[in-house]
Parts: sequence; C-alpha cells; structure tokens
Amino acid sequence: MTRVAVIGAGPSGLAALRSFQSAAKKKAKIPEIVCFEKQDDWGGLWNYTWRTGLDEHGEPVHGSMYRYLWSNGPKECLEFADYSFEEHFGKPIASYPPRAVLWDYIKGRVEKAKVRKWVRFSTPVRMVEWDKKKKLFNVTVHDRRKDRMYTEQFDNVIVASGHFSTPNVPFFEGINSFNGRVMHAHDFRDALEFKDKDVLIVGRSYSAEDIGSQCWKYGARSVTATYRTKPMGFKWPARFEERPLLQKLVGKTAHFKDGSIKEIDAIILCTGYQHHFPFMAEDLRLKTTNRLWPLDLYMGTIWEENPRLSYLGMQDQFYTFNMFDAQAWYVRDVILGRIKLPKLDAMKKNSRAWRKREEKLENAEQMIWFQGDYVKELIAATDYPSFDVEAVNRTFMEWEHDKMADIMGYRNKGYRSLMTGTMSPKHHTKWVEAMDDSMEAYMKND
Amino acid sequence: MTRVAVIGAGPSGLAALRSFQSAAKKKAKIPEIVCFEKQDDWGGLWNYTWRTGLDEHGEPVHGSMYRYLWSNGPKECLEFADYSFEEHFGKPIASYPPRAVLWDYIKGRVEKAKVRKWVRFSTPVRMVEWDKKKKLFNVTVHDRRKDRMYTEQFDNVIVASGHFSTPNVPFFEGINSFNGRVMHAHDFRDALEFKDKDVLIVGRSYSAEDIGSQCWKYGARSVTATYRTKPMGFKWPARFEERPLLQKLVGKTAHFKDGSIKEIDAIILCTGYQHHFPFMAEDLRLKTTNRLWPLDLYMGTIWEENPRLSYLGMQDQFYTFNMFDAQAWYVRDVILGRIKLPKLDAMKKNSRAWRKREEKLENAEQMIWFQGDYVKELIAATDYPSFDVEAVNRTFMEWEHDKMADIMGYRNKGYRSLMTGTMSPKHHTKWVEAMDDSMEAYMKND
Repeated sequence: MTRVAVIGAGPSGLAALRSFQSAAKKKAKIPEIVCFEKQDDWGGLWNYTWRTGLDEHGEPVHGSMYRYLWSNGPKECLEFADYSFEEHFGKPIASYPPRAVLWDYIKGRVEKAKVRKWVRFSTPVRMVEWDKKKKLFNVTVHDRRKDRMYTEQFDNVIVASGHFSTPNVPFFEGINSFNGRVMHAHDFRDALEFKDKDVLIVGRSYSAEDIGSQCWKYGARSVTATYRTKPMGFKWPARFEERPLLQKLVGKTAHFKDGSIKEIDAIILCTGYQHHFPFMAEDLRLKTTNRLWPLDLYMGTIWEENPRLSYLGMQDQFYTFNMFDAQAWYVRDVILGRIKLPKLDAMKKNSRAWRKREEKLENAEQMIWFQGDYVKELIAATDYPSFDVEAVNRTFMEWEHDKMADIMGYRNKGYRSLMTGTMSPKHHTKWVEAMDDSMEAYMKND
Repeated sequence: MTRVAVIGAGPSGLAALRSFQSAAKKKAKIPEIVCFEKQDDWGGLWNYTWRTGLDEHGEPVHGSMYRYLWSNGPKECLEFADYSFEEHFGKPIASYPPRAVLWDYIKGRVEKAKVRKWVRFSTPVRMVEWDKKKKLFNVTVHDRRKDRMYTEQFDNVIVASGHFSTPNVPFFEGINSFNGRVMHAHDFRDALEFKDKDVLIVGRSYSAEDIGSQCWKYGARSVTATYRTKPMGFKWPARFEERPLLQKLVGKTAHFKDGSIKEIDAIILCTGYQHHFPFMAEDLRLKTTNRLWPLDLYMGTIWEENPRLSYLGMQDQFYTFNMFDAQAWYVRDVILGRIKLPKLDAMKKNSRAWRKREEKLENAEQMIWFQGDYVKELIAATDYPSFDVEAVNRTFMEWEHDKMADIMGYRNKGYRSLMTGTMSPKHHTKWVEAMDDSMEAYMKND
C-alpha cells in the first residue's frame, strides 16, 4: 500500500489529512497516511504553550503564540471553504477571534473528519532521506514518549512544519552586555510581564505591530518601535512611538540612528523567522527567505527535483488556512494521480514566471491579488469547494484600510463571510478593553 | 587512514584533541581527528553567548553560562595536570576565577597545542549511524556557514557534547497562566534583569544556589528558593529564604507546601538538565539521568555495545576538567590500541560493580572519594601526568565546609595547587563586592 508521511499537524498538516479524508469519503482509494507531530496535541502554532526555548523533551519549542492574541486579520479571509465558522459555532461570530476560538475552529473540522488516529504525537522527525534504489523515503523519527527512534519507509512526504518557529535573531552592538531583558518575539508569552516597563520593539512587520500593541494595551510604560527601512506609520496612541534603527546599547540605554537615546528595560526582537528544516536531507531541503514565491516548488508546493516530496504553506502569507487547503488538495491529487505534472523544465519555467511577477509587486494590494490569483489557480485544479477569491481579496483591502485608519480599533470591525454570505456581528467589547482572551468570554454575548 | 570524529569542542572535546596531539608530540602515529562544533568558537559552556533559546542558525543554544559567573569550586580541583594555571597566567592567581579567566585558561592549552585546525566550527551534528557492513560510522553534519549538510565516514566517534545544555522543565499548576516571567536556568543571562524583583528559584542544586546568590548580589528585592526534598540549608543573608515546594501559581502569587504564599515577579527553574543526544542513532544513544555512574559505558566512557564509540564527561561531576582529561587519554589509548578492552560481559560486570558502589553513596564526601577513585583508575592506565588525587579530594572537602560556613563568602578563600604546590593568593576584592567579572578586573592586582 502506498504510504504518505505528513510532517506536522498544524493548519497545513491538518489540511493534508482532511484532503485525503475528504477523498476517501467520496469513495476514492487513499494511501495510508501517517502524520508526525512534535507537540502532544494538534493545531501547530494555535496550540499555545507557556514553554519557551526547548520543550519538556528538549526539542525546540514550535509555538510563537502568546497569550491575549486576537487574529490580526478578519476570520472571513481565512475561513475554510468546506467548514464555515457558522457550521462550527452554530451561530455567526465576530470577525477577529482570539486564539482559543481559532484553535477550536481548526480542531472542529478534523475532529469531524475523524483523522486523529493518523497522527503520532510527541514525535519529532529527525531525518528524511530519499533512497534512490528503492525509490522510497526513509523517515527517521523520535517517539519522545517511549524515547525511541525508528525509521519507516514512505512513498510520499508532505512537509507541513511551518515557518514561524525558528527565530531570526540579529546582533546589535552592546546587546551582549545589555542589562535588561533580550528576547525574540518567538519567546513572547504574556504582555503583563511588561507592565510599567519601557519596551523596545525591533522590527516593523506583523509581530512588531501586534506585540507592540499588546504591550501597550496591557500597560507598558512606553513602547518604542525601531525600524530599518521605514516606520510602520500607524497613528499610534500616547506611550507608543517609532524611531529609526537601533545602533547600539550601552548598559540599558538604546541609541538610535537619529542620535536620540532612550532608557529601556526590555528588547523584543520582532525580526522575523527562518525557514528551517534540519531534518530534511540536503537534496530535499527547501532553502528560501520568507516571500510570496519561493523557488523550487512547482505550484508553490511540489518539490520540482523530486515530486514525491511537497511542502505546504511555505509562502509569506496573506492567505492562510484556505490557501493551505488549496495546496493540500492539489498535492493530494498529484499523489492520487489525478493531476499529471509537467516535465521538470516546464515546472521550472512556470515557477520562474510566477517569481518574475512576484518581483514586480509594489504594495500590499498587489501582493494580495497575486496570492489570490495563486489560490484561484490551485482551487481550479481540484474538487476543493470553490469560493469568491476576489471578494476575499477585497476584504483584505478593507482590512488594510481599517488598520491604517485605526491600529488599536480595527479589530472592532466586522465583515461578511464569503462562504455563507452572513455578515459578522459586532463584538460585545472593544479590543482595547477586552483583557480576557478566553473562548467563554468571547462567545458569551454574540 | 583511521579517522576519529569528536563531537563538541568544549572542555571534554578539547581534552580529546589535546590527548591525541600529546601522543603525536611523543612521536606516536595518530588518526585523522575531525572535531565538529556547533558554536563559532571553542570552549563549550565557557564560550558565553547572550543568545537564549535558538541561536543565529536556529540551533538550540548550547550555553547555560551567565554573566558574572565565578567558579563555584576551587580552580585547584579542576586544574589540568599537563598545563597549570601558573603556566598559563605566568603567576599564581586566586582560587575562584570568573568565567572569562577560566575560558582563557582552557583556550591557552589548546592554542599551545595548535589543534584549532582540527575543528570545524558552526557545524552541528545531525546524525551518527553505524554501518554494520562497512564497520564505519556515518556522521551527517550541517555546515551552517555554507548551509550545507554532508556525510563523512569515521572509524571512531567520541561524543563530547556535554549534558548541561538541554533543560529539564517541570510543570507546576498555574505556570501556564503566570503573569510574570518564567524561565529555566539555561536561559539565565544577566542578574541585573532581576534587580528590585521578587525572584522565585525552584531547585536546590548548584544552579539554584548560584543563580539565587547572583540575583541577591545584584540587587533582587527578595530571593525565595523552593525545594522538593530538603532545603539547601546554607546560612542565607537577609532577603534570601527557602520554602518547601511550590504547589501552584495564581496570577503572580506562589503557593507553597507549608501553606504560605508570596507575590513574585519571576520564576527561575533551576531544575536540572537532560542528557540529550538527538543526533545519535537509537543503538548508539546514551540514555541516563545525571548521576555519578551512568550505565552502558565501560570505565565511564567506552560504549560497551560498540567500543568504537565513546562518551566523555557524561557523569554528574565533582571532578571536571582533569576528569575529562583522564577519560580522553583513556579513550585515546583504546583507539590507539594501547589499551585492550575486556570482552563485553567483563565490561558489563565491571560497570555493574561501580554502579553498585555508587548506589550506596550517602553524602558528598563519599561521592567525592568515589569519583576520585574513578579518576585515579583512569590516570593509572595512561601517560596522563599523575597528580595527588586524594589531595584534590581533600580540597573538595575543605570547599564543601567553607561553603557551608559562609555561602556568600566561601569564594574569598584560597587553596594550594596540587600540580605546582603553590598556595593561591587572596583575591583583591570580596566576591559580594566584586561586580565586574572581566579578566582585566580579576587579574589587575594579583
């Protein structure tokens, strides 16, 4: 029997499981699926852990999730086409749910699909190698519960281990003798730790914007964000400012490029993540920065040099859950033989064309349409339920404008579901006043 | 040509390099030595890094070293028999040097030996496997500077990667929603971060004792150490107390087993380390807790089931640098064929006898003599320069007593070198008043 290994049981890996289960439900013959998950539960980043650095087994902690995180984009842009929020919660809910609500939603679909039996938990993958003679992958994993490493053979491997787990941590002069706290966003857990502190945020992307806002919301004395190229440019409230790049640290004093200085207690490096696959043999290992079109992946997923291998969700992302779905369904159909791949040259040519278009993108609007077009092309190739991708694009635009208009207030807005057509209700509490991020608190009033 | 892989260029790995170089200097024919080191410089734990969690390449940070660390045992107990402190520094120095001084000392010997060319830096080992047919090890490593994984064959492998790198992190009720900082000793870097804070130290061993003392010395508002079995029992100064085991956390309130509570800002888990070798195949992987006599290692070093593999420094330690030396010389002589190993059964029997004796040890004094006896037996088997091990044992006793008498003052004491016979001078500043841990500050006055 054909065997497929899926690495990771987060949103991408679970999309892969659901894609095969969905085919089986429609009477297709599917391979044996084995999903290896490092954590002891599924949900990937959405499975919050208080741990930082290394986990209880000494494995690098996967999660970069923090307490009080609310979605920073409308749930209408990430809704599954085969499982709506309304189906899951039995009623319409507001547009920017906190983490626990999104985790519940992700889990709901795969619980319904009954695919948990395919997952081997607490089992990090140590090495994936291609056996040229046998034309099989040797996948070596470590069962942490039994503390036993073992190797099994697979016909296909789907890498769905994410790329927001391995921090990119730059050096700044004096950071090695800074007398306060230094951390990467990956290790950020509870904004209350920074109450009454002067916090320095390094970076200008989503982590900087959201962790900075969190620290502000939960009572930091001041938040100073420092940028290399340009400021985030939002209309920040009092106690929140942006400064040009940090040049050096002396004791607890930060020196900025404009010559200004500030005493700070903590530095949170929101400096991005690395694509990191130490468990993939050299000839199978994706090497890319975080961008909308990584090379070497046909249709953004199939490893061109060996199409028995694929990667899910490795793009920089506007689209998330439903893009992972579209990719998973595509990969599934390649594995099932429903999609016939072109020759290597043609695949490479196709990828180069996408990359060329990607390189010309100038702003978020263009990037959203680019990724929307990609999602459309994927969906057209499979039986994944079609949805109005261009309407999702437009919701993304609205979100961008709402955020620019009011960085601390955009989460109070609501949008229409593109899956059910229902308008989301207004949430009972404004985001700046909502301190409790539990599912109970969120659901009580909708 | 025979090839030997050494994993790690810390005190143990460098002992291995020096052992072979020493043989070569005496005209022996030695194998090709390749040492793989994850960090970009040598010295292991003594090579301080400000980084925590994952390093610049996404690899788990090796170091558990923190700023302002001064040796917690007399340097006279860890002195190399072939390279004295006096030789290195050109004069006698005081007995409890700070980190930078010890790092300099470790480096001095291997710089003199000119073995840096054997080390491939920034190269973590991914997998070590035994090829039964070829009777060779396949060692797969990752050159992080070129971002390239490759595999080479070796006749022998010496694992010297340490066992104070992978934290053991227990769960306590409420720790997942504690509103302050939670960290393991592994991630502790700068005691000034805890100035004016109420710090909770969990544990009663060396990390608890030293990190607690550091926080106290650098101005923590209070230090509360919580123990499971029994208190450390030192005569703590004001602002430092011990309480029975932490039961749970509610908000920022710690609840202890005696029913008492305390508001705290930070929890430092000094709860030990795991022996963690995820890069060793199942049949080669040492599995042990931290103890004086781990099983499966003949003479505490030779992997009994395959003596082409050995481990250095895997014991719980009173003896350190000179014990690693004694082990390294022993392993070297096994590899060079100078020591002939007994059959598997005899090796196992020998190990069981040591273990049996270890299990009966009742106090630190007995443990020191046990480990001293082990070191003596190793040294007797090779040409490692002999020294008065029993006199070192007695220095350990003196240290234990000095520490019990004055936990914040024992580092002001001095001891006689067992290698040179010189009495160490008094240090110019008392430890509680010495805030600068640089080598310059330490050396200026001796």
